[in-house]
Parts: sequence; structure tokens; C-alpha cells
Amino acid sequence: MRALRVDGTTTNLREVAIPDAGAEVRVRVTHSGICNTDLELGRGYMGFRGTIGHEFVGVVDDLGSIESALRVGQRVVGEINAGCGTCALCATGDSRHCATRTVLGIVARDGAHADYLTLPARNLIAVPEGVSDLHAVFVEPVAAACGVLERCPLAPGDRVAVIGDGKLGLLIAMVLQATGHAPVLVGKHAAKLAVAAARGIVTTTETPVRGFDVVVEASGSAAGFSRALDLLRPQGALVLKTTVAGTTPVDASRLVVDEIRVIGSRCGRFGPALELLAAEAIDLDPLISEVVTLDGAEAAMAQAATPGTLKIILTR
Amino acid sequence: MRALRVDGTTTNLREVAIPDAGAEVRVRVTHSGICNTDLELGRGYMGFRGTIGHEFVGVVDDLGSIESALRVGQRVVGEINAGCGTCALCATGDSRHCATRTVLGIVARDGAHADYLTLPARNLIAVPEGVSDLHAVFVEPVAAACGVLERCPLAPGDRVAVIGDGKLGLLIAMVLQATGHAPVLVGKHAAKLAVAAARGIVTTTETPVRGFDVVVEASGSAAGFSRALDLLRPQGALVLKTTVAGTTPVDASRLVVDEIRVIGSRCGRFGPALELLAAEAIDLDPLISEVVTLDGAEAAMAQAATPGTLKIILTR
Repeated sequence: MRALRVDGTTTNLREVAIPDAGAEVRVRVTHSGICNTDLELGRGYMGFRGTIGHEFVGVVDDLGSIESALRVGQRVVGEINAGCGTCALCATGDSRHCATRTVLGIVARDGAHADYLTLPARNLIAVPEGVSDLHAVFVEPVAAACGVLERCPLAPGDRVAVIGDGKLGLLIAMVLQATGHAPVLVGKHAAKLAVAAARGIVTTTETPVRGFDVVVEASGSAAGFSRALDLLRPQGALVLKTTVAGTTPVDASRLVVDEIRVIGSRCGRFGPALELLAAEAIDLDPLISEVVTLDGAEAAMAQAATPGTLKIILTR
Repeated sequence: MRALRVDGTTTNLREVAIPDAGAEVRVRVTHSGICNTDLELGRGYMGFRGTIGHEFVGVVDDLGSIESALRVGQRVVGEINAGCGTCALCATGDSRHCATRTVLGIVARDGAHADYLTLPARNLIAVPEGVSDLHAVFVEPVAAACGVLERCPLAPGDRVAVIGDGKLGLLIAMVLQATGHAPVLVGKHAAKLAVAAARGIVTTTETPVRGFDVVVEASGSAAGFSRALDLLRPQGALVLKTTVAGTTPVDASRLVVDEIRVIGSRCGRFGPALELLAAEAIDLDPLISEVVTLDGAEAAMAQAATPGTLKIILTR
């Protein structure tokens, strides 16, 4: 089968063996989405080697050796953190912080930019009928956007800003709007901001006046951290979504003097995200820059890294 | 009167005019404590120029032009943040984040290492009879230690570590113990750790095994930030007390991947601190390295900067 593999600092589409289901479930991937994390992994982030890709929709291909309620041919998406299944965290049904977890296409587990992948049965979730394949691919990043509210619940009337008009920033702004909040989206790219503005979200390329209760940093740039601090009121909260390799210089005494909370947020639950998708509460179509076949994956990665590009979806 | 003044990078005891009470209350300072922030201010932190010192006990000397329930001769301590008195924050009785506040001996207001100071009447609090002068001097740093719990309430059984065996770290560990928790104090100095150990607090010079729910960073060093991250479980909380000039390199992706909360904590309320002092719930005497007169303030500042020194109190 075809697989888009990172090996040190090269990213190549290669022919590899189809994985056995074993004690997991084999999924035939029909669509996968290119995420900025894929680009970071290609630059050496996490030291990952293997098949990248963690946003996908596919159909169950082989149920493996473990019994489950899934059936062959069923359309599924998958939670990307595969926990040990037995530790205290996994026992609560949440493997996102299992100490020995693997993560699809990110940590010690081959990912979704391939013809097939495997995941534990408990990671797979059926896709509601009304959700198209092209929208279902978004469930992981929409869940990550929903994760902001999981980590930092907002009160009605909270003033909230989102920094970053890339895919994740746009999704976060849309999720906040869809859940009854009125975010201000701060970005640099008129065409990307226009996607949010068309949905009635307030956007700006200027730095807004300080005084936000919550600022979500999703710019993907190390400089976003101190920009976020510039917008916050004393005792406000900075929700950090950006992962970049290396260190960020932080004026820690600002955090102390203004008593800021910095809240790291990574993955979200798929349930709330699928509900938003099924309700068509978020307008995903303007976020799709292109749909190309897996054979064009290498060129698609290069294109995904160019300014102005939003989501590229790889079909099979 | 005598006043210990910072002027750029020199710190000198000088003769200056006794301040008028004006619309505030003039206090004759009887004791003031040297804090690490005084040392930082002497090195240029906050760009402060003027009389330093913000830990004190004194007696009301002149009630000024505004009516209050205070009386001349009354023994008082004082909240160090002097707000505008009219903004939304001040209206709640909490001036700690008033945007135009001055701060005793720290921001645009002469401080306590002098014979007299002035503060608004609403900042002054009578000292309970049973609390000695030498203990009353500690109310501000004990309040700052209590502020940890204000910003990050602990649940029973939470595993909590304190990094830093200086005055603030010791006080935080003691306050946590006095309020029913069982902190582990991580430090470098056997003599300082012994102060906590004598109270039954678990201490160590080694890096404990990762897995704390809450880590309080009070080492006063920029390196403390990443050391604190090394101790935290995923989704744990890092309470940041250290203020140092300049920036700290932070691996922000660790905050995101492990979904850490970083909680800045500066000042605390005096009420809970005075209650702890009145109840003699904290053993302050071992924290006092020396009591010297204000005339020896310059030498005392030099001594306060030497390793191994705890609190130096200046008498009049």
C-alpha cells in the first residue's frame, strides 16, 4: 500500500506492506487531512519516524482478533491517542494522557496518510449518516478546537480573542461562535479572516486593546505567546494550542505580576465535535483549499506549507 | 528621616523629608523586613527609583485629612497595593490589579525601609494583640504564600511540591502544611530545609519522581520553571511565584502536550495571613536570620543577598 513516511527530515510517499489487524481493527482510509503538525513532524518535531497523518475517515476493513460492536464496511473516524487500556487514566475511558500511549501518526504509531491504518476498536467511532466524508475528516481538529472549552470553560459574556487565522484558529473561532460566544479573531491574512468574517465573526489584523478575559493562542508561532499576554486583562487566561519545536522566551514575571493563567490544550473529545458536525453548526467547506489523491501527497505537503493554504484533503 | 533608596543601580540609606499624610495616613514604621524583591529592585527590576521595602509593622502617626476608624498610636500593617479606589476592581475591595495602582516600595510609591511611610487608610489593618512585632512583619509574605491557595485551591490528598527553600518557599510549605496539606519541599540548602523538616515537612535535595498534581515554583531562579514541569503529572498545575527580570526559555509545546496549567500568583489577602499569625500556626522564629537597626540597612541588604540568609528585619 501507499504511505507518506517521515524519515528524519525527508517526507516521501512509499510502498509498504498492508498492516495486519492483529488485536486491533484495520481501517481502509478513504480521506485524510494534512495538519500543521504533519509539517512540524516533517521538520523533526517529536523525532517521529513512520507514516504521518492523524485526521481521517475510512471504513472498517478487518475486525482483527478482538470482539467489538463494529462491522466490516462501517464508516468510522478514530481518536488518535491509543492508551494501554489498563492504567487509571485509560480506565476512565480517556487515554489522552496515558503515559505509555501511542498517537496515530505522531508517537510510535503509523498514521493515516496511507491506504490502511490500524487502531484499537475502542478508538473507533461510527460517523453519523448526515456527515459527509469531507466533513468527517475534520472531526479531529474540530475536537481539538472544542478542547479549548473543555480546558477553559467560558462564562456568558466573557471577552475572548483567538490569535491565528490558520485552520486551527478559524475552527476555534467557529466553535466558540457555535457554542454561544463572540470571539474576536486576530490574524494576518485577509483571505483567511474573510472566511470567519463571512460567518459574522469579528476579525482584525490589528492588535486589539488589552482587556480580554481569555485569549486562545493558535498562531503556530513562538511569538504568539507574548502577543497573547498583550491582550489579556489581569488574572485572565491564555489557552495555548500552538506546538512548535524548541523553546519560547517568556517574561515569566508578567505571568506572576498580572496573575495570568496559561492553560495548555491539546486534543479534545470526538463526541462534542461529531455533534457540531452533524448539526452543521460549523461551515467547513471554505476551509478546504484542495482535495487531491494520495499519489499527490508529497506536492500537497509542500503546498500545505505555503501561506494562504487552508486544509488539503487526500483522497484514495 | 532615614530612608533606604534605590537610584538606578545603587541602594543607599539617605536623609529625606518626613512625608506629609495628606489624604492618606502616616505610619511610623517600627520594623521592616528585607524581601528578595528588594534585592531585585536594587538590580533594576521594574525600573523603580525611591524608597524600597514593603513588609512592615508600625504605629499610626498622623491620620491625615480623611476620616477613618483608625486612631493615632494604633499598631498596623498595610496592604501594599494602593488602588485608585474608584475603578471596578477597587470597588470590590481588591486593589491588587487596579490598572493605576501604586505599590509600596515597588511601583511609584516610597516604601517601608524608612522611619515613616504613608498609605491610604483603607490599606491599613490593625494587628491583633497576641501577634508580636517581629511576627507581624511577616504578614505580607505569609499573605503571598496564602495567595497560592487563593489562585489554585487544593483538593484533599493533592500531591503538592514546593521548589525553593528560600524565605518564600519555606513560608509556602508551612502555610500548605498549616492548612491541611502535605507538601514536599525541594531545595538546595541543608540548613534551610532543616527549618521545614523540624516542622515535619518532607524535604529533599533530589528531584522527586514525576507525578505531582501541583508544583509551586518559588526558587527565585529562571531555571525553576522547567524543573517544575519535570515534577508535574499531565494536566497538573504549576503555580508560579518567582519574579525575575528578563525572559525565561519555556518549552511551550510541553505545556500543550501535557496540558499543564501555569498559574501566576503574586500578592495574597492579609486577612487569612493574620489569622494564621494569630493562631501561631506557622513557626516564624527560625526564619529570622538577624534583627538589625535601620542604620545598618546597606550592610543588611548585602547580607540578605548571601546564600544561607533568611529574613533580616530592620528595627528603628
